[in-house]
Amino acid sequence: MDLVGRLLSGDRRALARTISLVEDNGAEAHTLLGELYPHTGQAHIIGITGAPGTGKSTLVNALAKDYRGRGMTVGIVAVDPTSPFSGGALLGDRIRMRDLAGDPGVFIRSMATRGSLGGLARAAADVILVLDAAGFQRVVVETVGVGQAEVEIANAAHTVVVVVTPGLGDEVQAIKAGVMEIGDLFAVNKADQEGADHAAMAIHMMQGLAPKDDAQGDGTDDGWVPPIIKTVATHGTGVDELLLGIEAHRDYLHQGKHFGQRERMRVLKELEAILQRELLTRLRTRVPPGKMEALVEQVHRRELDPYSAVAQLLAADA
Amino acid sequence: MDLVGRLLSGDRRALARTISLVEDNGAEAHTLLGELYPHTGQAHIIGITGAPGTGKSTLVNALAKDYRGRGMTVGIVAVDPTSPFSGGALLGDRIRMRDLAGDPGVFIRSMATRGSLGGLARAAADVILVLDAAGFQRVVVETVGVGQAEVEIANAAHTVVVVVTPGLGDEVQAIKAGVMEIGDLFAVNKADQEGADHAAMAIHMMQGLAPKDDAQGDGTDDGWVPPIIKTVATHGTGVDELLLGIEAHRDYLHQGKHFGQRERMRVLKELEAILQRELLTRLRTRVPPGKMEALVEQVHRRELDPYSAVAQLLAADA
Repeated sequence: MDLVGRLLSGDRRALARTISLVEDNGAEAHTLLGELYPHTGQAHIIGITGAPGTGKSTLVNALAKDYRGRGMTVGIVAVDPTSPFSGGALLGDRIRMRDLAGDPGVFIRSMATRGSLGGLARAAADVILVLDAAGFQRVVVETVGVGQAEVEIANAAHTVVVVVTPGLGDEVQAIKAGVMEIGDLFAVNKADQEGADHAAMAIHMMQGLAPKDDAQGDGTDDGWVPPIIKTVATHGTGVDELLLGIEAHRDYLHQGKHFGQRERMRVLKELEAILQRELLTRLRTRVPPGKMEALVEQVHRRELDPYSAVAQLLAADA
Repeated sequence: MDLVGRLLSGDRRALARTISLVEDNGAEAHTLLGELYPHTGQAHIIGITGAPGTGKSTLVNALAKDYRGRGMTVGIVAVDPTSPFSGGALLGDRIRMRDLAGDPGVFIRSMATRGSLGGLARAAADVILVLDAAGFQRVVVETVGVGQAEVEIANAAHTVVVVVTPGLGDEVQAIKAGVMEIGDLFAVNKADQEGADHAAMAIHMMQGLAPKDDAQGDGTDDGWVPPIIKTVATHGTGVDELLLGIEAHRDYLHQGKHFGQRERMRVLKELEAILQRELLTRLRTRVPPGKMEALVEQVHRRELDPYSAVAQLLAADA
């Protein structure tokens, strides 16, 4: 049986191999994704994001165990764009695996890259597709930090959980404001520490300030108020409540037009991202040898500004 | 006198107006940048990055004051992609301004956006150019967080300072690994807190693990070992040492081929970023009305995969 056939029949080695090929983004990747695509669209994608030190990984593991207890399969994509050495992600996998080891209903993939902006978001989206096609009912995408790349990855999720902690101080709480807009649920993790109520209250107050959610695009509030859930992931406290909150949001999305609109917006953004990459690759092959280097040199010497240099490249191509 | 003329003659209102136009990225922006570009290339660009809560802003202010004490002019670009409401950046400006108010040798601009991935990096690069053209001798770019967007912005700098603190715990220190590669200097801020020596030691040990810097591209270590400097920004402690370290790195870059190579690489990346944006904009105008929506719908229904959809768009365009 071919790779896709084996993957669809539940072969875990075929799954791992496919993910590696997709991550490498070589010639085979597009063909594979094309074959897998008709089998996608069943998984519910859950994004879990928050600053370093909030205990996201522990929370994701606890959540995965809870889902497994309910008989559901879970794929986990742990994205860490800040991990410097390729070994880091692998080590992370192994530490995580200890907890969920030997359970074929769970698959964990850690991703780290030093590649260009957008490259990681692209690869993560493709890996999510592969796990979706492989039949995982819930795919959890864990992203570190609060940068824009993380926000883009979270945008690929149906339900976004923002994790905060009491201990990180007011300065950090203020920063969290940036993820207020993308959070469908908030988890105040390490809630046994001092300040948990304060953190929950701060989120609650910021919700009052934030623009209203309007996924329907009809100018009215959507009606979903992101719940704020206190968790202690290390003891499993609140994890069940978080899971039920996620499922409630899923049900909410599937009522009315919300889900279809989110999906169409995601598809549009995905097409544009692929287009940009392809267009640049195509142009590069048409630019005469040495032309790019000559323009870089001129811009470097301040004889030409960057926008005029690009205009020259585009004019020559028209 | 026209806007560019007034900006070049030191008019601060013309500078603020130009920055706003450049940020908006409208029709005037490219013309303005083209006119300003020949006047750029004199400023030394300093990137200061680190996780939330490390006291970067205080450190940047202290550094700016130190530079002013030495008679040098300083432009500051504070990039906070996580700030949710446009008012946040303005408020930030005002708080900062209290410290450095009324000094025409300092100009501070805070930037926040909810725009697409890469949009903020693009705008920040353009604002840096404007400050460079306006004659600021040092331009400090402060970025929040450890995400890829921040790393890209830092790449636009000649000298990158990574700020860490003792108090954020081992988990956070591990995350910092991601910025090891981009740091030309490390500041252990809040060094009067417990654990400062531990943090400095951790950085020192990771330096031993990291791939050698090879900006010359000749396969050998470049010889620059990033210094680790303890600072207490609130008291000004270590700020002078940090400044001297930055200047030492600047001198180092201007020896040999380092500086030109960094600059050419930066120009190439900048051209590619502009190209990608322009190519997508141009393609959009050529796609027949409704075609994009139809493809999104097909992909959404899983009748077509994203890569095949893009191939259709490109084939129709060829």
